[in-house]
Amino acid sequence: MELSCPLPLTESARVLLGHGSGGRLSADLVRRFFLPRFANPYLDRLDDQAVVDVGGQRLAFTTDSFVVRPLFFPGGDIGRLAVNGTINDLAMGGARPRYLSAGFILEEGLSLDDLATILDSMRAACEEAGVLLVTGDTKVVDKGSADQCFINTAGIGVVEHSWLLSADQARPGDRVILSGTIGDHGMAVMSRREGLEFETEITSDTAPLWDLVATMLEGSSEIRCLRDPTRGGLASTLNELALASGVGIELDEARIPVRPAVYAACELLGLDPLYVANEGKLVAIISEAQAPAIVERMRHHRLGAGACVIGVVTEHHPKMVIMRTRVGGTRVVDLHSAEILPRIC
Amino acid sequence: MELSCPLPLTESARVLLGHGSGGRLSADLVRRFFLPRFANPYLDRLDDQAVVDVGGQRLAFTTDSFVVRPLFFPGGDIGRLAVNGTINDLAMGGARPRYLSAGFILEEGLSLDDLATILDSMRAACEEAGVLLVTGDTKVVDKGSADQCFINTAGIGVVEHSWLLSADQARPGDRVILSGTIGDHGMAVMSRREGLEFETEITSDTAPLWDLVATMLEGSSEIRCLRDPTRGGLASTLNELALASGVGIELDEARIPVRPAVYAACELLGLDPLYVANEGKLVAIISEAQAPAIVERMRHHRLGAGACVIGVVTEHHPKMVIMRTRVGGTRVVDLHSAEILPRIC
Repeated sequence: MELSCPLPLTESARVLLGHGSGGRLSADLVRRFFLPRFANPYLDRLDDQAVVDVGGQRLAFTTDSFVVRPLFFPGGDIGRLAVNGTINDLAMGGARPRYLSAGFILEEGLSLDDLATILDSMRAACEEAGVLLVTGDTKVVDKGSADQCFINTAGIGVVEHSWLLSADQARPGDRVILSGTIGDHGMAVMSRREGLEFETEITSDTAPLWDLVATMLEGSSEIRCLRDPTRGGLASTLNELALASGVGIELDEARIPVRPAVYAACELLGLDPLYVANEGKLVAIISEAQAPAIVERMRHHRLGAGACVIGVVTEHHPKMVIMRTRVGGTRVVDLHSAEILPRIC
Repeated sequence: MELSCPLPLTESARVLLGHGSGGRLSADLVRRFFLPRFANPYLDRLDDQAVVDVGGQRLAFTTDSFVVRPLFFPGGDIGRLAVNGTINDLAMGGARPRYLSAGFILEEGLSLDDLATILDSMRAACEEAGVLLVTGDTKVVDKGSADQCFINTAGIGVVEHSWLLSADQARPGDRVILSGTIGDHGMAVMSRREGLEFETEITSDTAPLWDLVATMLEGSSEIRCLRDPTRGGLASTLNELALASGVGIELDEARIPVRPAVYAACELLGLDPLYVANEGKLVAIISEAQAPAIVERMRHHRLGAGACVIGVVTEHHPKMVIMRTRVGGTRVVDLHSAEILPRIC
């Protein structure tokens, strides 16, 4: 994949906030620093999880660190996010989540009450999703060397079917399906951080998506790829898919659901909901033939009630995402270079 | 296990550095905050790894976060530590390390050259141990919200034998085996941090222990437990074993190898090498019958050349570690309450 380097990397180059954005700089960091060193068939796929073979069993394995600020926000907290985030990365590989690890980095002075609340959330999220937290680690750093609490979760899931869900599987003619509204999580965190008040409170959509995925997988053999559009939002996820599969994607803006309050908050902050993080939504690339039936099945699930086709995969403009706008024009939906919403998850 | 609470936890209680020490406060945090919420047969063992069953295969799963300061020290860096640390936690479960994940939390402004050096170390350590880094995540936080670079690694290993290595398996009469000198890692980091100079440079012992463990396991069915004495040192590890197995442990100080330079550095800083972290040593509890043969086998391995019996498991003074000192007396080797060496790994 020929992502060009957006900034010259001189000898004095340093890590920028944008390197954690999920956008162009993130992709650049991965491709220039990580892939050349650790190249192997699992990592090279750049999926949200590795699917490895252990003793004839296909296992999904994934990790994510959570650094969201503030720790508590409408609809969730860092603990719920950390459990659901890793469950979802396993689910996007078509794997049933089984076991989680949790690594805590705590700043000296963190309230133990806050820690207890976070752990309660993690327990509830584990119970909801039927996973077990089986191993953990806690480090404490001196005051000023971290920001209250960072959590890493890694997870193991079992792939119970035989096909491959991966970013490089999209083919011209496939449909792009979205499970519901976009931007809820990011704007819930931002509204709390910026002290914004709206008539309708915006709440995070953080949720465990495995059960929805299991519903989708039943009897469907033409799901090419599943992704949860977290950091960098829907725009970044679709760009990654277009790049990995060498295809174009055409979106229809009018079909992409955004809550009015989220839309208003984005307007106020000068943000595009396409780039705002979600924590309980998925994008699926599905064959034209099976798309209608799967969308129908998704709509019967609580977490897929708003499922709809938002676009198509095309052989035109490969590796680019184009959107027909509400006013009738078209525009390129590119990867962002800079960090627009730091520490959103 | 009835560890009493060393400090009253009032409503305003906060996280202290000691909660990350590997000593009494760490144990208290785990027992009061984590175990009651996530109780399950895997976590409850409090081993350095969980051994779970997936499709008839026994897998070890573990996680560790690394926050060492400084990032680079004689004999290693945070990258090598992060890979070897997780490899060793798998090995201590008798599992062949296979797959690693890596989660990075980078502070805005970190030098990309330093990051490259750290990643080079991780690659070299993975190659040395024959493991694959298959999945990862990178977050960036704003300047001042972290200290340069934190790394979490999680790992999956395969348990290829049928017996259980666990902290609760020690029995009276068993021998306590140590694979080599203690205190090297902790004093290497401290000497760099404090700017101390010694005639002989102290270097970290960071190393992957699986190959040594594989040698030990060949034909041995009476290894009760393996542990790598990291944070909190040999003293903390042996206290955990004594507690979990409900046995006493008697050490012979004269048999515990400490390099002269490490001993001198400890003297200078007022530290006891028994409490100083190691990153390439293991403690084994082995039946009296098999101990001599296994020690002999260890001595033929580069990482076990200094292996020796340092004590015995006894039915006396259960849950306590006692040491016969060089001058002929005895003393209790207790868990430390406070943090003596913050951010040593």
